[in-house]
Amino acid sequence: MKRYERVAAALQQRMDHGLYRTGDRLPSIRELCAEFAVSVSTVQTAYAELESAGLVEARPKSGYFMQARRRHGLLPAPSRPAQRPLDVSQWDEVLALVNQAEHEAGLRLGSGSPDLTAVTLKPLRRELSALYRRNEPALDNYDTLAGSLALRRQLARLAGAAGTSLHEDDIVITSGCQESLSIAIRTLTTPGDVVAVDSPSFYGSMQTLKAHGLKALELPTDPRSGISLQALELALEQWPIKAIQLTATNNNPLGFTMPDERKQALVRLAQRFDVAIIEDDVYGDLAYTGPRPRTIKSWDEDGRVLLCSGFSKTLMPSLRLGWIAPGRYREQALHMKFVSTGATATVPQLAVARFIERGGYERHLRQAVRLYQRNLAVILGWIQSLFPADIAVSCPQGGFVLWVELQGVDCVKLNARLQRNGIQIAPGVVFSASGKYRDCLRINLVRADAEVKAALQRMAQEVDQLRSR
Amino acid sequence: MKRYERVAAALQQRMDHGLYRTGDRLPSIRELCAEFAVSVSTVQTAYAELESAGLVEARPKSGYFMQARRRHGLLPAPSRPAQRPLDVSQWDEVLALVNQAEHEAGLRLGSGSPDLTAVTLKPLRRELSALYRRNEPALDNYDTLAGSLALRRQLARLAGAAGTSLHEDDIVITSGCQESLSIAIRTLTTPGDVVAVDSPSFYGSMQTLKAHGLKALELPTDPRSGISLQALELALEQWPIKAIQLTATNNNPLGFTMPDERKQALVRLAQRFDVAIIEDDVYGDLAYTGPRPRTIKSWDEDGRVLLCSGFSKTLMPSLRLGWIAPGRYREQALHMKFVSTGATATVPQLAVARFIERGGYERHLRQAVRLYQRNLAVILGWIQSLFPADIAVSCPQGGFVLWVELQGVDCVKLNARLQRNGIQIAPGVVFSASGKYRDCLRINLVRADAEVKAALQRMAQEVDQLRSR
Ligand SMILES: Cc1ncc(COP(=O)(O)O)c(C=O)c1O
Ligand SMILES: Cc1ncc(COP(=O)(O)O)c(C=O)c1O
Repeated sequence: MKRYERVAAALQQRMDHGLYRTGDRLPSIRELCAEFAVSVSTVQTAYAELESAGLVEARPKSGYFMQARRRHGLLPAPSRPAQRPLDVSQWDEVLALVNQAEHEAGLRLGSGSPDLTAVTLKPLRRELSALYRRNEPALDNYDTLAGSLALRRQLARLAGAAGTSLHEDDIVITSGCQESLSIAIRTLTTPGDVVAVDSPSFYGSMQTLKAHGLKALELPTDPRSGISLQALELALEQWPIKAIQLTATNNNPLGFTMPDERKQALVRLAQRFDVAIIEDDVYGDLAYTGPRPRTIKSWDEDGRVLLCSGFSKTLMPSLRLGWIAPGRYREQALHMKFVSTGATATVPQLAVARFIERGGYERHLRQAVRLYQRNLAVILGWIQSLFPADIAVSCPQGGFVLWVELQGVDCVKLNARLQRNGIQIAPGVVFSASGKYRDCLRINLVRADAEVKAALQRMAQEVDQLRSR
Repeated sequence: MKRYERVAAALQQRMDHGLYRTGDRLPSIRELCAEFAVSVSTVQTAYAELESAGLVEARPKSGYFMQARRRHGLLPAPSRPAQRPLDVSQWDEVLALVNQAEHEAGLRLGSGSPDLTAVTLKPLRRELSALYRRNEPALDNYDTLAGSLALRRQLARLAGAAGTSLHEDDIVITSGCQESLSIAIRTLTTPGDVVAVDSPSFYGSMQTLKAHGLKALELPTDPRSGISLQALELALEQWPIKAIQLTATNNNPLGFTMPDERKQALVRLAQRFDVAIIEDDVYGDLAYTGPRPRTIKSWDEDGRVLLCSGFSKTLMPSLRLGWIAPGRYREQALHMKFVSTGATATVPQLAVARFIERGGYERHLRQAVRLYQRNLAVILGWIQSLFPADIAVSCPQGGFVLWVELQGVDCVKLNARLQRNGIQIAPGVVFSASGKYRDCLRINLVRADAEVKAALQRMAQEVDQLRSR
């Protein structure tokens, strides 16, 4: 991150977190020079950046002020799903979303893919290419079921450095985080069982419930602090819940990270009711600031947390590389892995292990996170200037997706209209078991260029039309 | 295949199929020269090869005679499993087998991997390497759920050429044939259901039944002609069978290919009782002779056959590339694929599609099949000279595994003893739901060198000791 970007990001973070209010005078150039130990021109560049993103306003002779952000602080309200187990629906909408690539390209604002154009990914492709060029039969054989030791070692090391102590033998490599989730769910349940989920929730895990005849109990979820523990407690008292499945760090789609004490309290609750937790941590390495957030797993005392993760959001989806630390369920999870896909492909594992070992992974993460954070600021600015004041927008702590609530707009319809213009969004309904969030959508933050801006303009027009009918 | 090898293979085939009996005089050199349109020295080389494999005997002045093969025609008897649904056991033994790679190398006679040293695989590795070297972000993204069109087109073309008419949209690419089987089984069943299987049967599909709480009904299976259709009919009358799962072509572990009319009759039976067929065709391209055997699917009229296959046995296991043609269950199968692993890795699909398109696949198959057939003759010869006369051996029509029945020998114990000598076999128990086939084992035919010969000698000694106790 360049210096001015660091300063701009810090200021933006403070505004996002409510340290300043609309119209407040922001720190002077001098103050910021001192605080960040940077030059005057660095701070000026930072302010210019924030100004062009519509976040601050420069008033001649008086300094910089926080823009009258029309919806500053207007986060979506906590969700209020029905507190009873439901069958999962919405497969058609999910299929349309994930199969988009099949149709003409267009602008895939609904995509769940990370930045794949970064130069910091090149060394990884080089590793992959070099391993195949070696022409080594041993690399073409079945790997061991748990996956390559080289990769498991790197994963255990990274986890340890971020406060989750894992042994290499605690980890099973999978063909992507979806397989990890699927293994976890199938390990813990039989058809008819109930699983409590965050809501909105990742459609992949929700469809896994559907495919195996399970019911979802959608928990009220606060876009800043995550699932409601009170609601969960009530649900645990009332329903025979087998597992709690959630993304507690850089949540998809809401972007929140549950505070540490809430993660801890969740573990205690799970202990009290003796249920398992499926923690989806696939975005965990993409926090915008501070140390890497701790996992729920890091407070797990008796192996009841099944930690699921992978490289689809941090490196490349098409590696199809994930992992699971299934705690006390290791044996069943390994069996599930065997019947699900057998061993995992060898070369991607070895390539990623080397890439991590040589520092390429952390280098790439720094670059990617900086891009997403910057794009967030830019896109927030565009949204604020283009859309009506009553819409709500999430405040992501990491990752690369933004959740937008367009009160009164049917986003399935909106998507259909936009697709005629070659623009695709992720309609909110796919994130609910029961078709909620119809007036919400998820936007990808990987790009913030003229094409994206034009798409948002188009979207704003369509919203206008849909609302005025 | 060189000329002399073609002649030797043809002769061996005729002996295997009982066209000649022990002690019979075989065709003269002149006759064979005429039949195959080859030179005298070619036929002499062919006979020399068969002689060194212990299959024929040269008697001066009188010609060549079929060796007194002590167990010629001694195929294992058709299996006689209990005709009732059973829970599947033997996971520990399967895990030990598939996780062998974890321990020191040694000689893995129990392996299910094909030849990975062939030069004909090099162009495939080059494709893989080149695709990654292109540094093309588009290749790193999620593929469509059904898999790359380029590969599905090649698969549909190959299937059509072998008599199974498939459209590219009938095919879903998977992360290996195991995923195909798993998708098929999960699509068709719910816990408690019964699936009829060939017996002995591939442990991967059997463990899939176990993992999902299903019961296996093991069908009597003839090592030459496959499952008993009478037994199946009785079972269908008696039990609520949801699906029939079998490997009808170049069966693992028995090596048989069910004759066409029996495959057809099986389809009719499935229609009459309205059950689905899961056809595992992963060895289908590895027949030793004649045209590529037809699939059961080729007689499917109403989409009840779910054809499962992949490239682990024909190319490389670690590609983790398979496919399924799920017939009328396409929609559910696609859903299962989504929740199982999402999209399949892109680059291996594109590399294999190009490899097929450029003729590399068929070139490699010819080379591989020739090797396996040759090794079969050599290893049969060694077994015949090393082991007691009362053992039985399968007569594979294709593939690269041999099934050996060592009456009175506990092959789990045998395996333990051999492992102390760095030799691993696949004990028969892993191929049964209920621990049958304890006196059987499966041997890999990919190598037939001095090390393998020494291992068979060692095995013969251990068998001797185990029997004399
Ligand atoms: C929260 C979450 N978990 C899991 C996944 C699936 O990851 P993978 O592509 O590695 O299977 C995704 C991808 O969209 C996701 O957003
Ligand atoms: C009959 C049979 N089916 C399926 C498989 C699994 O294939 P894959 O490695 O592609 O998952 C095997 C591998 O051992 C097999 O022998």
